Amino acid sequence: MNVNGQPFRTVWMDGATVRMINQPLLPYRFELVALPTVADTAASIRDMVVRGAGAIGATAAYGVAQAAQLAPDATFFEDLAAAARLIESTRPTAQNLFYAVRHVLRAAEAEGDHPARARMAAVAAAEALADDDAACCEAIGRHGAPLIGDQARVNTHCNAGWLAFVDWGSALSPIYAAKREGRDPFVWVDETRPRGQGSRLTAWELAGENVRHAVIADNATGHYLQRGQIDLVIVGSDRIAANGDVANKIGTYSSAVVAKANGVPFYVAAPTTTIDPNCPTGADIPIEERDQDEVRFIWGWSDEGRFTRVRVTPEDSPARNPAFDVTPASLIAGIITEKGIVPASVEGIASVARR
Amino acid sequence: MNVNGQPFRTVWMDGATVRMINQPLLPYRFELVALPTVADTAASIRDMVVRGAGAIGATAAYGVAQAAQLAPDATFFEDLAAAARLIESTRPTAQNLFYAVRHVLRAAEAEGDHPARARMAAVAAAEALADDDAACCEAIGRHGAPLIGDQARVNTHCNAGWLAFVDWGSALSPIYAAKREGRDPFVWVDETRPRGQGSRLTAWELAGENVRHAVIADNATGHYLQRGQIDLVIVGSDRIAANGDVANKIGTYSSAVVAKANGVPFYVAAPTTTIDPNCPTGADIPIEERDQDEVRFIWGWSDEGRFTRVRVTPEDSPARNPAFDVTPASLIAGIITEKGIVPASVEGIASVARR
Repeated sequence: MNVNGQPFRTVWMDGATVRMINQPLLPYRFELVALPTVADTAASIRDMVVRGAGAIGATAAYGVAQAAQLAPDATFFEDLAAAARLIESTRPTAQNLFYAVRHVLRAAEAEGDHPARARMAAVAAAEALADDDAACCEAIGRHGAPLIGDQARVNTHCNAGWLAFVDWGSALSPIYAAKREGRDPFVWVDETRPRGQGSRLTAWELAGENVRHAVIADNATGHYLQRGQIDLVIVGSDRIAANGDVANKIGTYSSAVVAKANGVPFYVAAPTTTIDPNCPTGADIPIEERDQDEVRFIWGWSDEGRFTRVRVTPEDSPARNPAFDVTPASLIAGIITEKGIVPASVEGIASVARR
Repeated sequence: MNVNGQPFRTVWMDGATVRMINQPLLPYRFELVALPTVADTAASIRDMVVRGAGAIGATAAYGVAQAAQLAPDATFFEDLAAAARLIESTRPTAQNLFYAVRHVLRAAEAEGDHPARARMAAVAAAEALADDDAACCEAIGRHGAPLIGDQARVNTHCNAGWLAFVDWGSALSPIYAAKREGRDPFVWVDETRPRGQGSRLTAWELAGENVRHAVIADNATGHYLQRGQIDLVIVGSDRIAANGDVANKIGTYSSAVVAKANGVPFYVAAPTTTIDPNCPTGADIPIEERDQDEVRFIWGWSDEGRFTRVRVTPEDSPARNPAFDVTPASLIAGIITEKGIVPASVEGIASVARR
């Protein structure tokens, strides 16, 4: 997608160097990072310079391909295995990361004891994986775009945009597609406390694509739903259960309830890799509780131009910080996938789930 | 209520000096302010050193009584009238302020051309007005306390505590009463973006009364309602329409919808002065839109111990900032007033409204 009029992906490979957008600096500074070694690439995942399932997967794939390019023939397969272990150790709960590492590793190993061929195969596999991620998100946009009429007023929560993938994104992809088709949507951006992915990342992405938008406190979404100023809601998802229940960023559930109460359609957009067929219902999804200091302190950009945190609670007051909530399938108008829009139901999910 | 084990009111008069808690410094510093002149007292209202309908009313009353104490006999009534005009000019939309000023002024004028007696009458009227505010809030607590069982888990939004009144508060008063009756409630404190009255003021108040609590992002309330971890919700109100619709801090409406969807009772606590019999329904209540920078910047306490603001949005992204929303009467389990708990209905409201 566009940044200051120029197209970018979140991560790409340039020779043996992995390059990416430095996401923690957004929206305050737009800087690219060059990662010349596998250790640098692994650190970028561990330190969350890159985040989001799709973008992490592509970075992990590029990391193995980078190892393949840097490894001498003599120690090629040992070096590749060591790189895989290093990358896998960075974010132990990121499912996409393991898949991506194994995928590139297998492509190299399929060439037998032939480092030169294995090297090319690893690079090709990593590039194909990144391209697939981008194509999958673009397809989500294509299927979702017809939901967004001219001047449609869309609400979204958190950042399910291109920064979380290689390109296009999930929840924001239909909006970008509609915009590029010549329509002029407006987006109500939930700021998404406590970490502010909406105010920081979604607002920045939309500005780059010249999509009209306004940031609102999460508290204001219900008010605009009630007053008929939101035509539809689209959010992303962290995990979709087999019955169509959806885990997503904390606050998603409330928006879905209030949207339903006001007759506003509530959509979830996600690649089918988000579906967990082994998870029967939302009740089976564990809810991560994160550090309470994410609620007690807020990070932002000071008037002096520095990253600064400020405390917003009494020094001794405790906080609670659930990272996700579960939206029941009954509140969801449809799930927008790369294979089309399906109902949030056992049948709908089964029709698109990968086995 | 208690602060570090000592009882305080938000504002009081000490000779001819008005004293108050410096609320903008909370919860970071607990400091008292001494206001030796009427100009100082007026400035404290205008600059929001004091906020909340009840506390503003009492401050305004004390300001006129202060003028009466400082004015020489020769210019007594001119000085009083000038003080009234000055105080009335500070917050032109604060209904309580005008009532309080007029009330004290009339008490003085009722003594005829007799400055010494008028002086005493003004002081007595101001003290009575402050005492009435405290007594009214204490009565709200008495009526609401039976709703709060031992270990009850209560959610509240914004700050409808004693800092907004002279003492006790509205939504928090039943919690304080239950605590003093020996029960041990727990409060989920919505941080209440954008201005953070929950995380800053409500959490601080609860700590002073040793009430167990945790601050949560406003996004988390729905999750805890869904998971059965909230037994009841109590909020305050800025205005109650004749049909029982309630205007309150932005975000109240969403909580009410999600509480209803989960069978959790949602109460509003407010003195009957909050009822506007000339306002037929919530649709007739205008919604104030405040400065968008309240969403774009967050104020807090830096690690260096200074009030600091940080920007949390892209530099050029606009924000929208509605200050209130309207909760329909149908979502409200009852309105807790100083006269008892009444249904949120035309009949319920009429039974307690002042004429």
